[in-house]
Amino acid sequence: MHHKSFLSSRINALSDGVFAIAMTLLVFNIQIPDLADIKLGENFQTNIHQQIPHVFSWLLSFAILCRLWLNHNHLMSNHESKSAGFTGLNFLLLGAVAFIPFPAGLLGEYPNQAWSIILLSITYAVAALAIAGMWCIAPNRSSVGAKRVLLVSMVMLLTSILACLLTVINPYWGLALWLVYVVGIAPLAYLMERYVFTGED
Amino acid sequence: MHHKSFLSSRINALSDGVFAIAMTLLVFNIQIPDLADIKLGENFQTNIHQQIPHVFSWLLSFAILCRLWLNHNHLMSNHESKSAGFTGLNFLLLGAVAFIPFPAGLLGEYPNQAWSIILLSITYAVAALAIAGMWCIAPNRSSVGAKRVLLVSMVMLLTSILACLLTVINPYWGLALWLVYVVGIAPLAYLMERYVFTGED
Amino acid sequence: MHHKSFLSSRINALSDGVFAIAMTLLVFNIQIPDLADIKLGENFQTNIHQQIPHVFSWLLSFAILCRLWLNHNHLMSNHESKSAGFTGLNFLLLGAVAFIPFPAGLLGEYPNQAWSIILLSITYAVAALAIAGMWCIAPNRSSVGAKRVLLVSMVMLLTSILACLLTVINPYWGLALWLVYVVGIAPLAYLMERYVFTGED
Amino acid sequence: MHHKSFLSSRINALSDGVFAIAMTLLVFNIQIPDLADIKLGENFQTNIHQQIPHVFSWLLSFAILCRLWLNHNHLMSNHESKSAGFTGLNFLLLGAVAFIPFPAGLLGEYPNQAWSIILLSITYAVAALAIAGMWCIAPNRSSVGAKRVLLVSMVMLLTSILACLLTVINPYWGLALWLVYVVGIAPLAYLMERYVFTGED
Repeated sequence: MHHKSFLSSRINALSDGVFAIAMTLLVFNIQIPDLADIKLGENFQTNIHQQIPHVFSWLLSFAILCRLWLNHNHLMSNHESKSAGFTGLNFLLLGAVAFIPFPAGLLGEYPNQAWSIILLSITYAVAALAIAGMWCIAPNRSSVGAKRVLLVSMVMLLTSILACLLTVINPYWGLALWLVYVVGIAPLAYLMERYVFTGED
Repeated sequence: MHHKSFLSSRINALSDGVFAIAMTLLVFNIQIPDLADIKLGENFQTNIHQQIPHVFSWLLSFAILCRLWLNHNHLMSNHESKSAGFTGLNFLLLGAVAFIPFPAGLLGEYPNQAWSIILLSITYAVAALAIAGMWCIAPNRSSVGAKRVLLVSMVMLLTSILACLLTVINPYWGLALWLVYVVGIAPLAYLMERYVFTGED
Repeated sequence: MHHKSFLSSRINALSDGVFAIAMTLLVFNIQIPDLADIKLGENFQTNIHQQIPHVFSWLLSFAILCRLWLNHNHLMSNHESKSAGFTGLNFLLLGAVAFIPFPAGLLGEYPNQAWSIILLSITYAVAALAIAGMWCIAPNRSSVGAKRVLLVSMVMLLTSILACLLTVINPYWGLALWLVYVVGIAPLAYLMERYVFTGED
Repeated sequence: MHHKSFLSSRINALSDGVFAIAMTLLVFNIQIPDLADIKLGENFQTNIHQQIPHVFSWLLSFAILCRLWLNHNHLMSNHESKSAGFTGLNFLLLGAVAFIPFPAGLLGEYPNQAWSIILLSITYAVAALAIAGMWCIAPNRSSVGAKRVLLVSMVMLLTSILACLLTVINPYWGLALWLVYVVGIAPLAYLMERYVFTGED
């Protein structure tokens, strides 16, 4: 039993590391304007304003990474050993998380391109599928907290598919859906965690 | 109870990761001078000298990250479970910490621009507000160490507001205030920790 | 005894950090196409297509890093103290892991160059040798899980040597061997872990 | 007492993070040769050969980071609470560690410049001084392992000073001294750890 909780703690350590690095590296997609390109004064501010899509992309990805981390946390909350399949799906999740800086940077550079949002949505869909798969294998899936994990990942998967479809019509609509997702779930999740999660323990 | 301390340990792991990466990545704002741009000899040294604002910006941000980490440490020092609101504010703090490399890089590149220092001050103000908010929610806020956390974050918030105001008059005054903050708090904090923090346990 | 398990936990913490960073930083070899270089529309998609070798290189390296981490995990699975030689070989493994982003980036940029695949294979061979060496020193090498570690690292070493030889004839053959290795071992490892690893505890 | 060991575990987590990131990021100083600059074939290999100073600089810095981590490990090996001064000196050490990628990158780019080696030596000297200072404050400095920490950090400090002096005469002599330091201490440290460190427990 000792060995098993050890494996679980190392999955946590690796996952926390990947989440922490993805969260922090996202900011490096926001570029520092070049000295040669700007004339001091109002142009400096213009240049900063041009970084707004990058900042928006950073905020969006950071918020979704927080959401994914909370979900991962609920899945890992019992100390029992995880099976090889669970560990494999965790690697799939970590792969999606580690990949996020690329579509996030692409979105910051080209917010009006359909490909940027579709790639971002596919990445989130893979992460949501990995979490749903981990839920199927996890031994504690009958608890209240674990049921929420499935709900949240299904909502994320549906948002991803819908965002892809909307993007084909107009890229800004797909982006707007993700914005609604991030702004809408924050207070909802807070209320749910307050009343459902605390009741679980 | 076991589950709760587990959650607390994962918040620590994620936070330590974000702090460690922000601290280490800051140094990548200091650029290695390009071979094509320099004539060997005295120009090599001139180029190194041009990196001084970057080094100063790195030292400033590193010192403030250390300060924030110590505060975070005091807030997390009891092993009890943290509420969803506490976790949410912790994400706000991590967001501010992960964002620091951008304004720090901006300051190193443009130390004479008001916008650089205002953006840096806003980031620190958000971090200070997040810590103050976590203090309000934390269950151990009545302890001596926790009271210091509020004091320290209020001082950081006031410094941020004052630095913004001073920067509007003269960018170097805002920078000087942050310098005073970093140099002034180090011995003060050492004395306080020696006599207040050790008395607490 | 307390001191010894502490040392083991810190080796884990450092190793998990290095693995997590290497996994996450790999994605930064995939470059965001430059605004100046592309004409919007079909060229945007062409540019994304040009990143396919980078994405392939990222997937390959990510999969092998997962494999190495699982092996490292099995080696560290008992809480006993590790000897100085074990720690030294662990540093050699971490050195190889930390080095992977360079040959992976090289492979993404130049998938048709023999040197790229040879350098990548040498890096994996060093990692495999370090793990085999750690197995020789580890006190728990007689367990079933530990025996699998040696088997897996020997297979990786042989693949590395074979990939180098194939690359001299044709670079794509070396690349194809690594692809077979990654795709072939995933289901095999799952089956082995299901029946051998669970039998071990 | 519970709170105190908690503080110690978080210092470890932050320090391991900074060490792991510094070790991994070092490799990003090795640049992937640009497609536009090379003619395929022999020039590709020439370009790889030009990266040899970077690889050497990476190996040197990685080896010294391993050395520093082992020393840090010995200092933190008892679970007692650490004082505020100890934590402050630990931040100084982490600052030096986080700074290493810059002088290491500088050395890789300009191995024949005195300034590169002097800056690298100063960084290592600061790290050695921080460890010596932590040893003075640490409560377990009378143990055999802790005495070795002081010895190792003094040797590193003397090597730094000597390397600075030699560099003024000829940059390659300073570099050669660091090479001797790294190659010379590896077997020595192994023998010492085998006979002194194991006798300690």
